[in-house]
Amino acid sequence: MRHRAVTDRAELDRLLEDTFLAHVGMADGRGGAVVIPTAIARDGDSVLIHGSTGSGWMRQAAAGRPACVTVTDLGGIIVARSSFENSLRYRSAVLFGTFTRLAEADVPRALDLFTERLIPGRTAEVRPMHRRELAATMVLSMPIRDWSLKISGAWPTDPLDDVAGSAWAGVIPFDARRLGDPLPAPDLRAGIPLPASVRAMTRRDQPEPSQMR
Amino acid sequence: MRHRAVTDRAELDRLLEDTFLAHVGMADGRGGAVVIPTAIARDGDSVLIHGSTGSGWMRQAAAGRPACVTVTDLGGIIVARSSFENSLRYRSAVLFGTFTRLAEADVPRALDLFTERLIPGRTAEVRPMHRRELAATMVLSMPIRDWSLKISGAWPTDPLDDVAGSAWAGVIPFDARRLGDPLPAPDLRAGIPLPASVRAMTRRDQPEPSQMR
Repeated sequence: MRHRAVTDRAELDRLLEDTFLAHVGMADGRGGAVVIPTAIARDGDSVLIHGSTGSGWMRQAAAGRPACVTVTDLGGIIVARSSFENSLRYRSAVLFGTFTRLAEADVPRALDLFTERLIPGRTAEVRPMHRRELAATMVLSMPIRDWSLKISGAWPTDPLDDVAGSAWAGVIPFDARRLGDPLPAPDLRAGIPLPASVRAMTRRDQPEPSQMR
Repeated sequence: MRHRAVTDRAELDRLLEDTFLAHVGMADGRGGAVVIPTAIARDGDSVLIHGSTGSGWMRQAAAGRPACVTVTDLGGIIVARSSFENSLRYRSAVLFGTFTRLAEADVPRALDLFTERLIPGRTAEVRPMHRRELAATMVLSMPIRDWSLKISGAWPTDPLDDVAGSAWAGVIPFDARRLGDPLPAPDLRAGIPLPASVRAMTRRDQPEPSQMR
Protein backbone atom coordinates (compact mmCIF):
# COMPACT_ATOMS: atom_id res chain seq x y z
CA MET A 1 0.00 0.00 0.00
CA ARG A 2 1.28 3.46 -0.84
CA HIS A 3 2.24 5.44 2.21
CA ARG A 4 4.63 8.01 3.53
CA ALA A 5 6.88 7.59 6.55
CA VAL A 6 6.22 10.25 9.18
CA THR A 7 8.78 11.21 11.79
CA ASP A 8 6.71 13.84 13.60
CA ARG A 9 6.20 12.71 17.20
CA ALA A 10 2.98 14.76 17.44
CA GLU A 11 1.47 12.60 14.69
CA LEU A 12 2.38 9.46 16.62
CA ASP A 13 0.75 10.87 19.74
CA ARG A 14 -2.37 11.71 17.74
CA LEU A 15 -2.63 8.11 16.50
CA LEU A 16 -2.16 6.80 20.05
CA GLU A 17 -4.89 9.22 21.16
CA ASP A 18 -7.32 7.90 18.55
CA THR A 19 -6.91 4.18 19.17
CA PHE A 20 -7.46 1.94 22.21
CA LEU A 21 -6.00 -1.19 20.72
CA ALA A 22 -2.48 -2.41 20.10
CA HIS A 23 -1.14 -5.70 18.77
CA VAL A 24 1.93 -6.80 20.73
CA GLY A 25 4.33 -9.29 19.18
CA MET A 26 7.10 -11.29 20.79
CA ALA A 27 9.26 -14.18 19.62
CA ASP A 28 7.85 -17.50 20.79
CA GLY A 29 11.28 -19.00 21.42
CA ARG A 30 10.81 -21.59 18.68
CA GLY A 31 11.51 -19.49 15.62
CA GLY A 32 8.02 -18.02 15.42
CA ALA A 33 6.14 -15.16 17.02
CA VAL A 34 2.92 -14.55 18.92
CA VAL A 35 0.75 -11.48 18.35
CA ILE A 36 -1.70 -10.49 21.09
CA PRO A 37 -4.30 -7.71 21.05
CA THR A 38 -4.38 -5.52 24.13
CA ALA A 39 -5.52 -2.11 25.30
CA ILE A 40 -2.87 0.61 25.18
CA ALA A 41 -2.50 4.07 26.70
CA ARG A 42 0.22 6.63 26.27
CA ASP A 43 1.72 8.09 29.44
CA GLY A 44 4.06 10.90 28.40
CA ASP A 45 7.02 9.30 26.67
CA SER A 46 5.90 5.73 27.34
CA VAL A 47 3.13 3.40 26.30
CA LEU A 48 1.37 1.32 28.94
CA ILE A 49 -0.35 -2.04 28.74
CA HIS A 50 -2.04 -3.83 31.61
CA GLY A 51 -3.39 -7.24 32.50
CA SER A 52 -3.67 -9.96 35.07
CA THR A 53 -0.60 -10.95 37.08
CA GLY A 54 -1.47 -14.49 35.94
CA SER A 55 -1.07 -13.71 32.23
CA GLY A 56 1.75 -15.74 30.70
CA TRP A 57 2.62 -13.40 27.86
CA MET A 58 2.50 -10.34 30.15
CA ARG A 59 4.99 -12.06 32.45
CA GLN A 60 7.30 -12.76 29.53
CA ALA A 61 7.03 -9.14 28.46
CA ALA A 62 7.71 -8.01 32.04
CA ALA A 63 10.80 -10.23 32.06
CA GLY A 64 12.26 -8.12 29.28
CA ARG A 65 11.53 -10.15 26.18
CA PRO A 66 11.89 -7.74 23.21
CA ALA A 67 8.47 -6.60 22.06
CA CYS A 68 6.94 -4.98 19.01
CA VAL A 69 3.85 -2.86 19.58
CA THR A 70 1.78 -2.06 16.49
CA VAL A 71 -1.13 0.37 16.49
CA THR A 72 -3.29 0.73 13.38
CA ASP A 73 -6.18 3.01 12.57
CA LEU A 74 -8.18 2.42 9.40
CA GLY A 75 -9.71 5.54 7.94
CA GLY A 76 -11.60 4.19 4.97
CA ILE A 77 -11.60 2.25 1.73
CA ILE A 78 -9.79 3.85 -1.20
CA VAL A 79 -11.87 2.98 -4.26
CA ALA A 80 -9.64 3.28 -7.32
CA ARG A 81 -10.40 2.94 -11.00
CA SER A 82 -8.74 -0.48 -11.09
CA SER A 83 -8.52 -3.35 -8.61
CA PHE A 84 -4.76 -2.90 -8.54
CA GLU A 85 -4.96 0.61 -7.06
CA ASN A 86 -7.65 -0.14 -4.45
CA SER A 87 -6.29 0.39 -0.99
CA LEU A 88 -7.08 1.33 2.59
CA ARG A 89 -6.67 4.70 4.25
CA TYR A 90 -4.64 4.00 7.36
CA ARG A 91 -2.21 5.23 9.95
CA SER A 92 0.04 2.65 11.56
CA ALA A 93 2.80 2.90 14.14
CA VAL A 94 5.32 0.24 15.06
CA LEU A 95 7.21 0.63 18.36
CA PHE A 96 10.11 -1.59 19.40
CA GLY A 97 11.50 -1.97 22.91
CA THR A 98 11.19 -3.83 26.16
CA PHE A 99 8.57 -3.45 28.86
CA THR A 100 9.23 -2.96 32.53
CA ARG A 101 6.67 -3.50 35.28
CA LEU A 102 5.43 -0.45 37.17
CA ALA A 103 6.03 -0.35 40.90
CA GLU A 104 2.91 -1.04 42.97
CA ALA A 105 2.71 2.57 44.11
CA ASP A 106 2.40 3.73 40.48
CA VAL A 107 -0.32 1.27 39.48
CA PRO A 108 -3.42 3.22 40.67
CA ARG A 109 -2.55 6.32 38.64
CA ALA A 110 -1.75 4.19 35.57
CA LEU A 111 -5.05 2.31 35.79
CA ASP A 112 -6.94 5.59 36.14
CA LEU A 113 -5.21 6.65 32.96
CA PHE A 114 -6.65 3.62 31.13
CA THR A 115 -10.12 4.34 32.51
CA GLU A 116 -9.96 8.00 31.49
CA ARG A 117 -8.76 7.00 28.01
CA LEU A 118 -11.75 4.69 27.57
CA ILE A 119 -14.37 6.79 29.37
CA PRO A 120 -13.25 10.36 30.15
CA GLY A 121 -14.51 11.48 33.55
CA ARG A 122 -15.29 7.95 34.74
CA THR A 123 -12.75 7.68 37.56
CA ALA A 124 -14.62 10.35 39.54
CA GLU A 125 -17.86 8.33 39.26
CA VAL A 126 -16.69 4.99 40.63
CA ARG A 127 -15.12 3.71 43.83
CA PRO A 128 -11.33 3.52 44.11
CA MET A 129 -9.64 0.20 43.33
CA HIS A 130 -9.57 -2.39 46.13
CA ARG A 131 -6.17 -3.54 47.37
CA ARG A 132 -6.72 -7.06 46.07
CA GLU A 133 -7.65 -5.68 42.62
CA LEU A 134 -4.42 -3.71 42.50
CA ALA A 135 -2.50 -6.81 43.59
CA ALA A 136 -4.06 -8.82 40.75
CA THR A 137 -3.08 -6.27 38.12
CA MET A 138 0.21 -5.78 36.32
CA VAL A 139 0.99 -2.59 34.41
CA LEU A 140 3.90 -2.60 31.96
CA SER A 141 5.60 0.42 30.44
CA MET A 142 7.70 0.74 27.28
CA PRO A 143 9.55 3.95 26.38
CA ILE A 144 8.57 5.59 23.09
CA ARG A 145 12.05 5.58 21.60
CA ASP A 146 12.41 3.26 18.61
CA TRP A 147 9.33 3.77 16.46
CA SER A 148 8.13 4.34 12.93
CA LEU A 149 4.86 5.72 11.64
CA LYS A 150 3.28 5.25 8.24
CA ILE A 151 0.36 7.22 6.90
CA SER A 152 -1.25 6.13 3.67
CA GLY A 153 -2.11 8.44 0.87
CA ALA A 154 -5.59 9.87 1.20
CA TRP A 155 -6.82 9.32 -2.36
CA PRO A 156 -6.55 6.82 -5.22
CA THR A 157 -3.42 7.21 -7.32
CA ASP A 158 -4.64 5.93 -10.65
CA PRO A 159 -2.48 6.21 -13.78
CA LEU A 160 -3.57 8.87 -16.25
CA ASP A 161 -5.12 6.48 -18.75
CA ASP A 162 -7.42 5.16 -16.02
CA VAL A 163 -8.29 8.70 -14.85
CA ALA A 164 -9.33 9.45 -18.43
CA GLY A 165 -11.69 6.45 -18.38
CA SER A 166 -15.23 6.14 -17.10
CA ALA A 167 -14.68 4.46 -13.73
CA TRP A 168 -15.57 6.27 -10.49
CA ALA A 169 -12.89 6.82 -7.86
CA GLY A 170 -12.95 8.10 -4.33
CA VAL A 171 -13.00 7.07 -0.70
CA ILE A 172 -15.58 5.39 1.51
CA PRO A 173 -14.68 6.72 4.96
CA PHE A 174 -15.02 4.54 8.03
CA ASP A 175 -16.71 6.19 10.94
CA ALA A 176 -14.85 4.04 13.43
CA ARG A 177 -15.08 6.53 16.28
CA ARG A 178 -18.82 6.67 16.05
CA LEU A 179 -20.45 5.31 19.15
CA GLY A 180 -23.89 3.75 19.33
CA ASP A 181 -26.46 4.48 21.98
CA PRO A 182 -25.41 3.18 25.43
CA LEU A 183 -26.90 -0.18 26.41
CA PRO A 184 -27.68 -0.65 30.13
CA ALA A 185 -26.38 -3.87 31.71
CA PRO A 186 -28.94 -6.67 32.17
CA ASP A 187 -28.33 -6.50 35.94
CA LEU A 188 -28.57 -2.69 36.21
CA ARG A 189 -30.78 -1.71 39.11
CA ALA A 190 -33.81 0.42 38.32
CA GLY A 191 -33.51 4.17 38.72
CA ILE A 192 -29.79 4.53 38.04
CA PRO A 193 -29.40 7.23 35.38
CA LEU A 194 -26.75 7.40 32.67
CA PRO A 195 -23.62 8.94 34.21
CA ALA A 196 -22.19 12.22 32.93
CA SER A 197 -19.13 10.45 31.50
CA VAL A 198 -21.16 8.15 29.24
CA ARG A 199 -23.59 10.93 28.32
CA ALA A 200 -20.69 13.14 27.25
CA MET A 201 -19.26 10.40 25.00
CA THR A 202 -22.47 9.47 23.28
CA ARG A 203 -24.52 12.65 23.04
CA ARG A 204 -25.15 13.78 19.52
CA ASP A 205 -24.41 17.45 19.36
CA GLN A 206 -23.58 17.27 15.70
CA PRO A 207 -26.17 16.77 12.99
CA GLU A 208 -26.51 13.23 11.73
CA PRO A 209 -24.99 12.57 8.30
CA SER A 210 -28.50 12.07 6.90
CA GLN A 211 -29.48 15.55 8.07
CA MET A 212 -26.47 17.13 6.40
CA ARG A 213 -27.38 15.88 2.96
CA MET B 1 -9.98 -9.33 30.00
CA ARG B 2 -12.65 -11.98 30.61
CA HIS B 3 -13.37 -14.08 27.58
CA ARG B 4 -14.33 -17.52 26.44
CA ALA B 5 -12.38 -19.66 24.02
CA VAL B 6 -14.48 -20.62 21.01
CA THR B 7 -13.70 -23.65 18.86
CA ASP B 8 -16.55 -23.25 16.37
CA ARG B 9 -15.05 -22.71 12.91
CA ALA B 10 -18.18 -20.85 11.78
CA GLU B 11 -17.48 -18.19 14.43
CA LEU B 12 -13.94 -17.80 13.11
CA ASP B 13 -15.26 -17.40 9.57
CA ARG B 14 -17.74 -14.79 10.80
CA LEU B 15 -14.92 -12.76 12.39
CA LEU B 16 -12.85 -13.02 9.18
CA GLU B 17 -15.94 -11.85 7.28
CA ASP B 18 -16.34 -8.78 9.49
CA THR B 19 -12.75 -7.51 9.42
CA PHE B 20 -10.42 -6.40 6.63
CA LEU B 21 -7.33 -6.05 8.75
CA ALA B 22 -4.87 -8.54 10.22
CA HIS B 23 -1.66 -8.05 12.18
CA VAL B 24 1.01 -10.49 11.02
CA GLY B 25 3.93 -11.27 13.33
CA MET B 26 7.19 -13.00 12.56
CA ALA B 27 10.43 -13.46 14.47
CA ASP B 28 12.99 -10.84 13.48
CA GLY B 29 15.90 -13.27 13.73
CA ARG B 30 17.45 -11.31 16.62
CA GLY B 31 15.26 -12.51 19.47
CA GLY B 32 12.44 -10.08 18.79
CA ALA B 33 9.44 -9.93 16.50
CA VAL B 34 7.90 -7.61 13.95
CA VAL B 35 4.15 -7.02 13.68
CA ILE B 36 2.78 -5.66 10.41
CA PRO B 37 -0.79 -4.64 9.58
CA THR B 38 -2.13 -5.94 6.31
CA ALA B 39 -5.40 -6.63 4.53
CA ILE B 40 -6.68 -10.20 4.83
CA ALA B 41 -9.26 -12.28 2.99
CA ARG B 42 -10.44 -15.82 3.65
CA ASP B 43 -10.45 -18.18 0.69
CA GLY B 44 -12.13 -21.40 1.81
CA ASP B 45 -9.80 -23.06 4.30
CA SER B 46 -7.00 -20.53 3.84
CA VAL B 47 -6.33 -16.90 4.59
CA LEU B 48 -4.73 -14.72 1.93
CA ILE B 49 -2.55 -11.66 2.20
CA HIS B 50 -1.11 -9.69 -0.70
CA GLY B 51 1.48 -7.07 -1.42
CA SER B 52 4.26 -5.91 -3.64
CA THR B 53 6.86 -8.40 -4.86
CA GLY B 54 9.37 -5.88 -3.49
CA SER B 55 8.13 -6.12 0.10
CA GLY B 56 10.82 -7.50 2.39
CA TRP B 57 8.55 -8.97 5.05
CA MET B 58 6.27 -10.55 2.44
CA ARG B 59 9.29 -12.24 0.91
CA GLN B 60 10.34 -13.60 4.28
CA ALA B 61 6.82 -14.88 4.83
CA ALA B 62 6.82 -16.44 1.35
CA ALA B 63 10.12 -18.15 2.20
CA GLY B 64 8.32 -20.07 4.94
CA ARG B 65 9.17 -18.08 8.08
CA PRO B 66 6.61 -19.15 10.73
CA ALA B 67 3.91 -16.52 11.02
CA CYS B 68 1.22 -15.53 13.49
CA VAL B 69 -1.87 -13.84 12.05
CA THR B 70 -4.08 -12.01 14.54
CA VAL B 71 -7.47 -10.55 13.66
CA THR B 72 -9.33 -8.43 16.20
CA ASP B 73 -12.75 -6.81 16.12
CA LEU B 74 -13.70 -4.39 18.88
CA GLY B 75 -17.42 -4.29 19.60
CA GLY B 76 -17.62 -1.63 22.28
CA ILE B 77 -16.57 -0.35 25.67
CA ILE B 78 -17.80 -2.34 28.68
CA VAL B 79 -18.53 0.28 31.35
CA ALA B 80 -18.46 -1.45 34.73
CA ARG B 81 -19.23 -0.17 38.21
CA SER B 82 -15.52 -0.06 39.03
CA SER B 83 -12.40 0.75 37.02
CA PHE B 84 -11.17 -2.78 37.66
CA GLU B 85 -14.04 -4.39 35.73
CA ASN B 86 -14.02 -1.99 32.76
CA SER B 87 -13.21 -3.86 29.60
CA LEU B 88 -13.65 -4.02 25.84
CA ARG B 89 -16.10 -6.13 23.90
CA TYR B 90 -14.00 -7.97 21.38
CA ARG B 91 -13.51 -11.01 19.18
CA SER B 92 -9.96 -12.02 18.40
CA ALA B 93 -8.48 -14.88 16.40
CA VAL B 94 -4.87 -15.99 16.34
CA LEU B 95 -3.74 -18.24 13.48
CA PHE B 96 -0.34 -19.91 13.31
CA GLY B 97 1.30 -21.38 10.23
CA THR B 98 3.46 -20.67 7.24
CA PHE B 99 2.54 -18.88 4.06
CA THR B 100 3.12 -20.14 0.54
CA ARG B 101 3.05 -17.97 -2.56
CA LEU B 102 0.22 -18.51 -5.02
CA ALA B 103 1.15 -19.55 -8.55
CA GLU B 104 0.82 -16.73 -11.09
CA ALA B 105 -2.21 -18.36 -12.68
CA ASP B 106 -4.09 -18.18 -9.36
CA VAL B 107 -3.30 -14.53 -8.63
CA PRO B 108 -6.11 -12.84 -10.65
CA ARG B 109 -8.87 -14.77 -8.87
CA ALA B 110 -7.26 -14.11 -5.48
CA LEU B 111 -6.99 -10.38 -6.11
CA ASP B 112 -10.62 -10.27 -7.25
CA LEU B 113 -11.44 -11.88 -3.93
CA PHE B 114 -9.76 -9.00 -2.06
CA THR B 115 -11.58 -6.44 -4.20
CA GLU B 116 -14.96 -8.11 -3.62
CA ARG B 117 -14.27 -8.30 0.12
CA LEU B 118 -13.61 -4.55 0.23
CA ILE B 119 -16.22 -3.42 -2.31
CA PRO B 120 -18.72 -6.13 -3.27
CA GLY B 121 -19.55 -5.97 -6.97
CA ARG B 122 -16.55 -3.82 -7.84
CA THR B 123 -14.65 -6.29 -10.03
CA ALA B 124 -17.41 -6.11 -12.66
CA GLU B 125 -17.09 -2.30 -12.80
CA VAL B 126 -13.36 -1.96 -13.49
CA ARG B 127 -10.93 -3.16 -16.12
CA PRO B 128 -9.07 -6.45 -15.62
CA MET B 129 -5.58 -6.31 -14.11
CA HIS B 130 -2.71 -5.54 -16.51
CA ARG B 131 0.01 -8.18 -16.90
CA ARG B 132 2.61 -5.91 -15.28
CA GLU B 133 0.31 -5.29 -12.31
CA LEU B 134 -0.06 -9.03 -11.78
CA ALA B 135 3.70 -9.44 -12.07
CA ALA B 136 4.24 -6.78 -9.38
CA THR B 137 1.88 -8.49 -6.92
CA MET B 138 2.51 -11.38 -4.58
CA VAL B 139 -0.35 -13.29 -2.96
CA LEU B 140 0.42 -15.54 0.00
CA SER B 141 -1.83 -18.23 1.43
CA MET B 142 -1.84 -19.84 4.90
CA PRO B 143 -4.05 -22.83 5.73
CA ILE B 144 -6.59 -22.29 8.54
CA ARG B 145 -5.39 -25.17 10.69
CA ASP B 146 -3.78 -24.05 13.95
CA TRP B 147 -6.00 -21.31 15.37
CA SER B 148 -7.72 -20.07 18.48
CA LEU B 149 -10.59 -17.67 18.90
CA LYS B 150 -11.54 -15.65 21.96
CA ILE B 151 -14.79 -13.80 22.42
CA SER B 152 -15.15 -11.48 25.37
CA GLY B 153 -18.13 -11.43 27.64
CA ALA B 154 -20.81 -9.07 26.43
CA TRP B 155 -21.56 -7.29 29.72
CA PRO B 156 -19.82 -6.04 32.87
CA THR B 157 -19.26 -8.75 35.48
CA ASP B 158 -19.32 -6.65 38.63
CA PRO B 159 -19.28 -8.30 42.06
CA LEU B 160 -22.61 -8.26 43.91
CA ASP B 161 -21.67 -5.48 46.33
CA ASP B 162 -20.93 -3.20 43.38
CA VAL B 163 -24.18 -4.19 41.62
CA ALA B 164 -26.02 -3.17 44.81
CA GLY B 165 -24.37 0.28 44.66
CA SER B 166 -25.37 3.37 42.75
CA ALA B 167 -22.97 3.24 39.79
CA TRP B 168 -24.27 2.80 36.26
CA ALA B 169 -23.08 -0.12 34.15
CA GLY B 170 -23.53 -1.10 30.54
CA VAL B 171 -21.91 -1.02 27.14
CA ILE B 172 -21.08 1.76 24.69
CA PRO B 173 -21.17 -0.06 21.35
CA PHE B 174 -18.80 0.85 18.57
CA ASP B 175 -20.38 1.24 15.21
CA ALA B 176 -17.20 0.26 13.43
CA ARG B 177 -18.90 -1.01 10.30
CA ARG B 178 -20.69 2.28 9.77
CA LEU B 179 -19.56 3.93 6.57
CA GLY B 180 -19.60 7.64 5.90
CA ASP B 181 -20.81 9.25 2.72
CA PRO B 182 -18.54 8.46 -0.26
CA LEU B 183 -16.03 11.18 -1.11
CA PRO B 184 -15.19 11.62 -4.82
CA ALA B 185 -11.50 11.74 -5.71
CA PRO B 186 -10.03 15.22 -6.35
CA ASP B 187 -9.18 14.13 -9.90
CA LEU B 188 -12.58 12.56 -10.67
CA ARG B 189 -13.82 13.69 -14.07
CA ALA B 190 -17.15 15.48 -14.16
CA GLY B 191 -20.26 13.46 -14.95
CA ILE B 192 -19.10 10.10 -13.56
CA PRO B 193 -21.86 8.85 -11.24
CA LEU B 194 -21.40 6.78 -8.08
CA PRO B 195 -21.11 3.14 -9.14
CA ALA B 196 -23.65 0.54 -8.01
CA SER B 197 -21.07 -1.16 -5.77
CA VAL B 198 -20.36 1.96 -3.72
CA ARG B 199 -24.04 2.96 -3.64
CA ALA B 200 -24.95 -0.47 -2.28
CA MET B 201 -22.38 -0.20 0.52
CA THR B 202 -23.27 3.28 1.65
CA ARG B 203 -27.00 3.70 1.08
CA ARG B 204 -28.93 4.31 4.26
CA ASP B 205 -31.90 2.01 4.23
CA GLN B 206 -32.10 2.01 7.99
CA PRO B 207 -33.22 4.94 10.11
CA GLU B 208 -30.46 6.99 11.71
CA PRO B 209 -29.94 6.36 15.43
CA SER B 210 -31.17 9.89 16.19
CA GLN B 211 -34.44 9.15 14.45
CA MET B 212 -34.94 6.00 16.46
CA ARG B 213 -34.89 7.79 19.78
